[in-house]
This record gives sequence, C-alpha cells and structure tokens, in this order.
Amino acid sequence: MTDKAPWVTYRPELKVLDCTIRDGGLVNNSHFSDDFVRAVYDTCVQAGLDYMEIGYKNSPRLFPESEYGPWRRCDEEDMRRVVGDHDPVATGLKLTAMADAGKSDWKTQITPAKDSVLDVIRVACYVHQIPEAVDMIQHAHEQGYEATVNLMAISIVQEVEILQALEVFVETPATTIVVVDSFGALYREQVDNLVGTYLAAMEGTGKHVGIHAHNNQQLAFANTIEAIIQGANRADASMAGIGRGAGNCAMELLIGFLRNPKFKLRPILRLLQDEMLKLREEIEWGPSVPYNLTGQLNRHPREAIKVREGSDPDNYVAFYDQQVRDI
Amino acid sequence: MTDKAPWVTYRPELKVLDCTIRDGGLVNNSHFSDDFVRAVYDTCVQAGLDYMEIGYKNSPRLFPESEYGPWRRCDEEDMRRVVGDHDPVATGLKLTAMADAGKSDWKTQITPAKDSVLDVIRVACYVHQIPEAVDMIQHAHEQGYEATVNLMAISIVQEVEILQALEVFVETPATTIVVVDSFGALYREQVDNLVGTYLAAMEGTGKHVGIHAHNNQQLAFANTIEAIIQGANRADASMAGIGRGAGNCAMELLIGFLRNPKFKLRPILRLLQDEMLKLREEIEWGPSVPYNLTGQLNRHPREAIKVREGSDPDNYVAFYDQQVRDI
Repeated sequence: MTDKAPWVTYRPELKVLDCTIRDGGLVNNSHFSDDFVRAVYDTCVQAGLDYMEIGYKNSPRLFPESEYGPWRRCDEEDMRRVVGDHDPVATGLKLTAMADAGKSDWKTQITPAKDSVLDVIRVACYVHQIPEAVDMIQHAHEQGYEATVNLMAISIVQEVEILQALEVFVETPATTIVVVDSFGALYREQVDNLVGTYLAAMEGTGKHVGIHAHNNQQLAFANTIEAIIQGANRADASMAGIGRGAGNCAMELLIGFLRNPKFKLRPILRLLQDEMLKLREEIEWGPSVPYNLTGQLNRHPREAIKVREGSDPDNYVAFYDQQVRDI
Repeated sequence: MTDKAPWVTYRPELKVLDCTIRDGGLVNNSHFSDDFVRAVYDTCVQAGLDYMEIGYKNSPRLFPESEYGPWRRCDEEDMRRVVGDHDPVATGLKLTAMADAGKSDWKTQITPAKDSVLDVIRVACYVHQIPEAVDMIQHAHEQGYEATVNLMAISIVQEVEILQALEVFVETPATTIVVVDSFGALYREQVDNLVGTYLAAMEGTGKHVGIHAHNNQQLAFANTIEAIIQGANRADASMAGIGRGAGNCAMELLIGFLRNPKFKLRPILRLLQDEMLKLREEIEWGPSVPYNLTGQLNRHPREAIKVREGSDPDNYVAFYDQQVRDI
C-alpha cells in the first residue's frame, strides 16, 4: 500500500470522467438518441461524477449529419436539447467535449465558453499533431474553457518523443495531460512508468495526470486503478465499459473501487439495467478474442473491428494467422 | 520493470496449469462430454501447457453419478477413456486432479500414483480445514504423487492465520502453495502483499508460490500477471476464462502475455472457436454485474450465481439493494 492511496480512505482531488457518449459514439457513429444521452447525463449527476464527455467537437465536413449523429459535432443546440441550461455548480458535473487534431474545425466550432454548456475542451492528438494540439489548447483556453490534452497511442511512441511532448504541453494552459492506452496494449509496469514520467514532467505546475485505458486485454480497470494508485488524479471510464472495439474501463467497476462517498453506484446500475442491456442488443463492444490479439500485438484495433463487423467474426485462428503474417 | 520479470525474456521455471475442466465443472456439475475433455487435453498438449487439471477427486457419496458428471470424481477408467495411458514425458503435460478437504473420500479415492494417469494431487481447503489438508497432502505424497495446496478464500482470512497456515504447509511435502482469490476480491496491492508473504514463508524450501484468480472484477488476468511479476511460478488459467461464476484468468490472455516460446497460442484459439463458443450457448460464466458486486464486497459469489440462474438475472439494482441490506 503506497502513501499515495491509503486503502481505507480516499483522495478528494481524484475526479472521474464519463466518456460513454464520446467513446461509445465510435461504435455507432455517435447515433445515440436524445433520451439515451439524457439518461447518461442524469446518471452522471446522480452518481456524483465530476465530468461527462458528451461527444466530439469534430468537423461537420468530415462527419456530416447524413452519416453521423449530433454527438460527433456537439453543436450547442443539440446539447441544450438534452441538458437544458446545465448548471455545473448545482449538478456538481462539468460537461466536456473532445476535439481531435486533424479532424476538428476548432477555430469555428469552439466558440466562447460563456455561451456554451461545455466547461472543458479535451484536445486529442497523435504525436505528429502536437503543434496543432498546442494551438487548439490555446484557443480553447482563450475562449474561456478549461483545456486538457490526450496524447494518443503512446504505446507506439518512443520515450524520447513522449518526454518532448510533455515538455511542450507543460508550457500550455492545459490543466491535465492524459495517459492514453489507445490500443489496450499496456501492462501494469508500463502504466507505472508512464504515469511516473508524466507526473515528473508536471511537478510543481499544478497540472494533473489522467488515465484513459482500453479493455483489449481485460486490463482497462486494472490499469486505471494502477494509474490512480501511482498518482493520476483524472480517470476516464464509461458505462458498461462501452467504447471503440474492446471498450474502456467500466464505470461500475471504478466506482465500486473508489472510496469517496460522494460517488454512488446504484444509479449506474440502474442505467446498466435500463439502457445498456438494450444497447448491447444493437451494437457490440468488449474484449473479444480479436481485440485480445491486437492488444497483445500493440496494434490499432481497426483490423479487429473489421473482423467483428464482418461475416466471420469468430474465426479467431484465421485472424491470428493474418496478424502473424503481417508482422 | 523488476529483476524478477525482465520484459523481453522469460522465466523457464514458470509453469501454467489449465483448470478448464475442474473449475469449469463447477458451472455444469462437471458434465463435460468425453469429446470436450479430449479437445481440451489435445489443446493443452499442443499449446505446451505444463499441467491440466482434469477434475475433482471428490466423494461419490456427495457427488453421485446421478447428478454429477465423471469429472467431479475422476475415477481412473473415466480419465483413461479420454487420455489413454497418457505419457507426461512425451506430451510435456502433467495431469492433476483437485481433492477438497471435507468433500473427498481421499483415503480410498487417492490410490497409488503408479497405477494412475495423474501426476499431481492438488489439495484445496479453507482455513478451518488445515489439519485434514495436511493429512491429505501427506497421503497423496505417500501414494507417489506430487502434492500441492490451495488455501481458499484468503481475502477473508486474517494475516495472522495465513502466516500460521503457511508455517504448517511449509513442513508438509507440498511442492506449491497457491494464492487463491476465491471471491475475485483482491486488488493488485493485496496480491503483491500476499505473494510476498507466501514467498517469504517458503524461502529456502524450494517450494513454489502459485496464483489462482477469479474474474469478478475483471482483474483475474491482471492479478495473475502481477503475481507472476512478484515471483509466483505456478499460474492457473482456463480456456475462455471458464470457471465458477465470473470465471478465471483466460488462458488466451495469459499465453499471449508470456514470452516462453514453448507456449503456443494458436491451438488455444482453435479450441475457443470450435468448442468454447458452443459451450457458451449452453452455460454462462464471466464477470457480469452481480459478480462485480460480490467481488467488490469480498463475498462468496453464491448469491450472484443464484441470481444469474434465476428468473431475473439482470435486475442489478435489486441485487445491489439486497447485498447492501445484508451488510
């Protein structure tokens, strides 16, 4: 038991973000009904969660209404249809949206915070997109938002580049830098190393380290609590673990683990029972064998997604052979 | 990265045990067909696994043929029908059976090893059954078997009792003492503590520490590799994670993690595809919400099993309320 996480108490500064609509939207082109988004919102409020990510602020050119639901763009009127005038103080919940470098018309899509129900813009980028990400952080900050950054796919980035990226992000107004295991490839010791590296880079800045894990190897929850134990103060999770491919850390597991009495499990169970079971009949997520394999191989899950959506989703041997040949 | 598990190499002394038929038999009263058991056996051989646990050596009085399949008793003729004369040297695979203290007629059921296809008897007991377990270990040893011991449900045993149990077991001929998380309740730091405690108690004896994890909180694989990293040299897993309630560590994840080239993933994937998917249509296992909850509460999964087998398996809120009331 480390000093950082005494077993029988809790860290008040640890905050939980629900990414059900945002990451889950990668499974269904963000076609969630208003009722569903409202149910998630109500659940987040009742469960005492700190942030709800209601979708992406990504480009209507790349993600047109004809193919993608409103939660891929998060126009103000769409969000307000569900959350009304949303009061972050009364609810205890801040709303966030993610903007992807290279996929967002952020200069026009991210408008002044005073006119938005959003409190936080989470900028996501790959390592080659850092300059744009820095501009996006700066822009969001100037518009009055809290800005954070998710550097994605770090399991395939060399440490020297991660260190350089951290040096750059530390100089921005970003309040949180998130360790993102996009491929669900990281094991515990690697999570330790990365969280330690991020924390060291941010020492004395007042910035926080976050964790966003994927469940390809059934390690999303384990890696999330590991990051928390090591000092990460921002944790992402989703209802029933919904998210692209193998999904994310399950909120019901994370809240069952955390000891802060402000978090309530019961409303989350209600949502699982009333909404998530129905959704599971329509769309698939979770750590099936093809995702296990891409996680083990530290690869993007796109090939596994293709197989799971195809006509022979359980031909594990054929998928394995193809993946091995492709090395 | 610790010295104990350098990332890019492997520990030759680390051995893997498949408990598909034994622990999986708790889901279906050990009613596996001979063909299925043979498929698992062939897979274990092809995958280079070290041990296959083919069932329980438990009492025919308590587990009669009218209700329980042969793998609850493992009579010699039943095993031989599937594995013939089984050659552990030629196959590289040793066969094991588990005998439960309090449930086994071990004096008559465990007969000389020279006449059996079994190489290993794994004795399982709760903390109040240690004296009988010691006698069972001694008996199995005298009959010519390697004997090991699984002290169950240690997440509800006080450390002082665990230490006393270890002192006792160290004096027996048991070659391995297994850390058993029967309720799927342990978190990583607890696994570290327990494996460290077990290793310290066995220092200099040549005995090994094992790990047997349950997946109630999706932590079976994480806790298994954690125990390995800390120095456990015996790891239990099962095909597709089959096992009582939430199941065990999935073999396909464990073998994907281990770096010893003698282990082969492909035959395991073949079994998952050809056999385990069919089985999933007949019986249920895996970490659904009721198992999450009993794991979080550090309780025996029996209430969760009852709910999952009942008429309202997805009434998570009612189950939660009942569990909370019962505290």
